[in-house]
Amino acid sequence: MSELKFDRWRLPFEEALMAHNLAGFSPAGLYEPIDYFMNLGGKRLRPIVCLAAAEQCGASLSQAMGAALAIEWFHNFSLVHDDIMDRAPLRRGKPTIHERNGLAAGVLCGDRMLVQSYVFLAQCPSSALPVLLNRFNQAAAEVCDGQQLDMDFEQRSLVEAHEYIEMIRLKTAVLLGFALEAGALCAGWSNQQSAPLYRFGEQLGIAFQIKDDWLDAFGDPSQTGKQPGGDVLARKKTWLWIQAQKEAGITLAELDTLDDSERVKRSLGLFRDLDLPARSMDLALFHKQKALDSLSLLSKTAGPSPFFIEFADYLLGREF
Amino acid sequence: MSELKFDRWRLPFEEALMAHNLAGFSPAGLYEPIDYFMNLGGKRLRPIVCLAAAEQCGASLSQAMGAALAIEWFHNFSLVHDDIMDRAPLRRGKPTIHERNGLAAGVLCGDRMLVQSYVFLAQCPSSALPVLLNRFNQAAAEVCDGQQLDMDFEQRSLVEAHEYIEMIRLKTAVLLGFALEAGALCAGWSNQQSAPLYRFGEQLGIAFQIKDDWLDAFGDPSQTGKQPGGDVLARKKTWLWIQAQKEAGITLAELDTLDDSERVKRSLGLFRDLDLPARSMDLALFHKQKALDSLSLLSKTAGPSPFFIEFADYLLGREF
Repeated sequence: MSELKFDRWRLPFEEALMAHNLAGFSPAGLYEPIDYFMNLGGKRLRPIVCLAAAEQCGASLSQAMGAALAIEWFHNFSLVHDDIMDRAPLRRGKPTIHERNGLAAGVLCGDRMLVQSYVFLAQCPSSALPVLLNRFNQAAAEVCDGQQLDMDFEQRSLVEAHEYIEMIRLKTAVLLGFALEAGALCAGWSNQQSAPLYRFGEQLGIAFQIKDDWLDAFGDPSQTGKQPGGDVLARKKTWLWIQAQKEAGITLAELDTLDDSERVKRSLGLFRDLDLPARSMDLALFHKQKALDSLSLLSKTAGPSPFFIEFADYLLGREF
Repeated sequence: MSELKFDRWRLPFEEALMAHNLAGFSPAGLYEPIDYFMNLGGKRLRPIVCLAAAEQCGASLSQAMGAALAIEWFHNFSLVHDDIMDRAPLRRGKPTIHERNGLAAGVLCGDRMLVQSYVFLAQCPSSALPVLLNRFNQAAAEVCDGQQLDMDFEQRSLVEAHEYIEMIRLKTAVLLGFALEAGALCAGWSNQQSAPLYRFGEQLGIAFQIKDDWLDAFGDPSQTGKQPGGDVLARKKTWLWIQAQKEAGITLAELDTLDDSERVKRSLGLFRDLDLPARSMDLALFHKQKALDSLSLLSKTAGPSPFFIEFADYLLGREF
């Protein structure tokens, strides 16, 4: 799937995002940083796939636009607060809100953005609203759980691979699952009919994050825009790290004796020695296949639709 | 209205709060501090008045319990995050979450509590859900606006009385308004039928906060449990301060030369010289009257109900 094909949903989404922004709202101390952050851009993958799923399931774009906006605002809220928790000074190359406007602004802007995600959710077709609200709440709660696990892992010396998969499922994948499910719900599909789409997004989200970790370690800097090894320097316990620790006995303490560039070189070298580039891609493809398998449970109206398969290929094939 | 009379709603509410707590949920790093905070107690005024309003409007307690829980969880979320923004080490005499478990826990626990408030809201009668969600979102957004104004005022040397009233309306009063309105909506009342109850709660909430400020300055420490003058020491621009600054030209800079006890003595003395104890109570009673006036717009089913009048008397009469 080309980037261009995405434009069918990206362009109307960006238009709606702009039409419903909070620029100029008062008090400015609250809304100016929110507008700044919402304009930092992003791939808009979740709302795009929500709108695409809605169309596949028979809805118009406008029927699902509230859900798409809710998901994108929620995602951005989570970034604002995660950046506080991770003490990250930059997001998409620009200062984070707490860095630019102070801690209190970071906290309050995030809160307001979370509330705004529910404002958009409330614009969904009212017959679907009770189910949508429950499912959105579930995803939102699980994203919090995932963030907590991520922080817990920072404090632990040993993390198991299955724990890592569960963490990224919660922190990243359930929202992609909800994005697809919400599209179907907005089209009037039942909870049960929409479930395979949730599962598709969830498993694809896991695959997506594993690919993301792969790109962080082995991606082409000219395409990713980042120097390889960021996760190693941030001491993240990715699947790559967990396997290297388990199979080669590498420890964070050992890396502490090295400077940054040596630390990256040693870690990535070890990852390669253990064949982890190929093995982690195998793991990503395993979850991609689980995602595709769940499509067989879809009613004939939407599946087997080439869209979902192309979307999966796109997410796993990307080099950026 | 006696405290005892409140027990009719307080006891079932406390029971529901306990039955639906998140104690023992995993990951513990997220849910243990939440449970700690939810057990710090509180007057539970908002959920009590929500349940009472629901009964007045013809609903059973169980029909409105989801809304009551949503409002109490939302209120507690706002306390957790406000305490971060205000750098407050204590809440109800116990360590705040960010003090006890760190900044990241304070941020994430608050987020999860906000999400939980929507989980409870989703349990309301589904026919009322679209309106309830819109109204709750509006109140939640306005509470954020009010918190921002409160922080803005800290940075300003001059604040007008009407600006202060608008700030407390947003930060405190709209949630009390929603509590009453939500009770009516859960009873199947329309948006329009419920509006006078919102207005009643909103104006009563303003009166309540002015009385709160009065108690902080002139309350009996043996009843309030606090040393008088906390707001003066925290340099809060309450209505008392704003009037004293306007009429007697007192400035924060002038107070900076004094030690804490002298600062309190000088400020409270000035408040008394300007007859502000009586005048601020007059202002509170003015808003109480506006609250009561709005009851005349209620349909005969609920008004003129002695409950609402007694509740107003109770809130303004309290000495704690």
